[in-house]
Amino acid sequence: MNETSRASERLVHVPLQGRAYDILIGPGLIERAGGEITSRLKGRRAAIVTDENVAPLYLEALMDSLQTDGIEAVSLTLPTGEKTKSLEHLSTVCDMVLSARIERNDAVIALGGGVIGDLAGFAAGIVRRGVRFVQIPTSLLAQVDSSVGGKTGINTRHGKNLLGVFHQPDLVLADTAALDTLSEREFRAGYAEVAKYGLIDQPDFFEWLEKNWKAVFSGEPERIEAIARSCQSKSDVVVEDERETGRRALLNLGHTFGHALEAAVEYDGKRLVHGEGVAIGMVLAYQFSARMNLASPDDASRVEAHLKAVGLPTRISDIPGELPPTQRLLDAIAQDKKVKSGKLTFILTHGIGQSFVADDVPSSEVLSFLDEKRSR
Amino acid sequence: MNETSRASERLVHVPLQGRAYDILIGPGLIERAGGEITSRLKGRRAAIVTDENVAPLYLEALMDSLQTDGIEAVSLTLPTGEKTKSLEHLSTVCDMVLSARIERNDAVIALGGGVIGDLAGFAAGIVRRGVRFVQIPTSLLAQVDSSVGGKTGINTRHGKNLLGVFHQPDLVLADTAALDTLSEREFRAGYAEVAKYGLIDQPDFFEWLEKNWKAVFSGEPERIEAIARSCQSKSDVVVEDERETGRRALLNLGHTFGHALEAAVEYDGKRLVHGEGVAIGMVLAYQFSARMNLASPDDASRVEAHLKAVGLPTRISDIPGELPPTQRLLDAIAQDKKVKSGKLTFILTHGIGQSFVADDVPSSEVLSFLDEKRSR
Repeated sequence: MNETSRASERLVHVPLQGRAYDILIGPGLIERAGGEITSRLKGRRAAIVTDENVAPLYLEALMDSLQTDGIEAVSLTLPTGEKTKSLEHLSTVCDMVLSARIERNDAVIALGGGVIGDLAGFAAGIVRRGVRFVQIPTSLLAQVDSSVGGKTGINTRHGKNLLGVFHQPDLVLADTAALDTLSEREFRAGYAEVAKYGLIDQPDFFEWLEKNWKAVFSGEPERIEAIARSCQSKSDVVVEDERETGRRALLNLGHTFGHALEAAVEYDGKRLVHGEGVAIGMVLAYQFSARMNLASPDDASRVEAHLKAVGLPTRISDIPGELPPTQRLLDAIAQDKKVKSGKLTFILTHGIGQSFVADDVPSSEVLSFLDEKRSR
Repeated sequence: MNETSRASERLVHVPLQGRAYDILIGPGLIERAGGEITSRLKGRRAAIVTDENVAPLYLEALMDSLQTDGIEAVSLTLPTGEKTKSLEHLSTVCDMVLSARIERNDAVIALGGGVIGDLAGFAAGIVRRGVRFVQIPTSLLAQVDSSVGGKTGINTRHGKNLLGVFHQPDLVLADTAALDTLSEREFRAGYAEVAKYGLIDQPDFFEWLEKNWKAVFSGEPERIEAIARSCQSKSDVVVEDERETGRRALLNLGHTFGHALEAAVEYDGKRLVHGEGVAIGMVLAYQFSARMNLASPDDASRVEAHLKAVGLPTRISDIPGELPPTQRLLDAIAQDKKVKSGKLTFILTHGIGQSFVADDVPSSEVLSFLDEKRSR
């Protein structure tokens, strides 16, 4: 750590009652994780969960830092990829955490992207009915989205994230230096979630991104600024509605269409990764809102233009390969867990930064809209 | 249901913020579960979890009642016994609940004793990050203890209840008619937890039990009164300290010694069931408190006399068969999850109804005390 990196660091405080926590954003946080943890948590034991891509890059630095600050740590390295979010791996993680004799004040540490965070967070939420949890997200997607807010989970044969708990982290260390090792495609996919916060309720942030996105992609300080604003946005929503009984659903902007497209390619990351599905989904949400005369077509065009400029897919036809019939896409939407008592729930919009929850969208409209859109 | 049974019914309201719920206590509640559920919960689907002992007695009546009130229900009958609290069975339950397309406002219903309640409650807490949960406890132990308060869990090779969540029920239906099918031994074991509430902080209730225990054993209305007072006591403690960061630990009176004794017989229910361990444990806690000059030996004698009168074991030597060396009992105590950073935590007492948390009990004192006690 040097003075320059410390100076550029940002802190977002998530003021949840009784369980408030800090998100630190800046370069070099992995190397000084030990100090940040010991200054906030009482326990002196930790169980690190990571994956095969991330371990060779950052595990040693993290272990060294924990050791230096007197934290006794063990680690478990799991296969990379969505399939790791299984009951079998959850069982392995819990067994490792219990073997390490982690008590309530000790920590489970997730070092990796969203998959590792979701899995390790679930384990932290159920071992001894909840132990401390530290997120060290290493992907942009995880830094701006999944590491904040306490949603954890695994997949089952019935669908994604169908088992899980709300378990807030006690600390999030978003080391922006870790983003330098991401592929361009991965970074872009995470960027879709950054843009989402502007599109939900912050038109000024979306405008800022339209002007500054190249600097966000190339590095600090705009990158740190964009991540900090994203975390602040997510924190605001989560504090208001931790368990998604209302406003938190806005975070699903672009996700209902996006999940259906991910399901349509059978979660084949070569064809479509989550953030790309969200990018296309957000454009579709704006276009559908325009079609329903809720928003201006100009806003839909503006969203599409920006996401296209950064290199994200924005149309269904941008997805390589064949897609199933439109009715099957709709079925996937209806099966999504955000369905309430059979009605279709979508996040729609009145314009840039003016999104809202619509819970009675007619499926016939969605069907004809998708039929039209997939051909262009 | 007849007018007499309705008249004798009791309601305990648990005023947890945002998640308040009712406990109904009285005969015939299983037969009218449907009405009680539909008047409180929005969902019209339910997944019932029960076991092989309970299903033949009450499952049909419950299914009929749900159907009459328009609730579409499926059921899963599991083997009876502590081994059912496993990850494997949790997985089976979750799969069944997801197959039944239970959404957040629908309910998982636990019909059975503590094992079924702990397992089904855990599943209800993690499916879709939490669906509604109804407890229909059929043992005295579950009615006065495990069905109230939201602790759920399963066992692992590392110990009991090491994986779980806090997930409060939305409704508890304690059908006192179901207790008529319990064996005398099971009823007595549950009674130990009833007496516990008096010994924790309600000397008047303990005195009432000393006078009325025979009526509690033989049936209404004293039985209903005892269960209602127990549920009210537990509710008071849980509302004050839902996640056991302080006062809730008092509910562990008798449990630290009790768990060690259960472990010593390798959880062989033929030799010692949980409530019996708690009975001996409470006597030991009072005797140990007397030995430490914290309480009067007369109080310890009074506790022992009452529990003995109802037919519960009160001495280590009441446990049939050989026990391991005292040091191994102590090791079991130290491994108990209620250990904080290596110190021994016990619930001790200043007298009847004057229990408190002592978190720095010297293990040498415990060792010599146990050595002395096991020989008498």
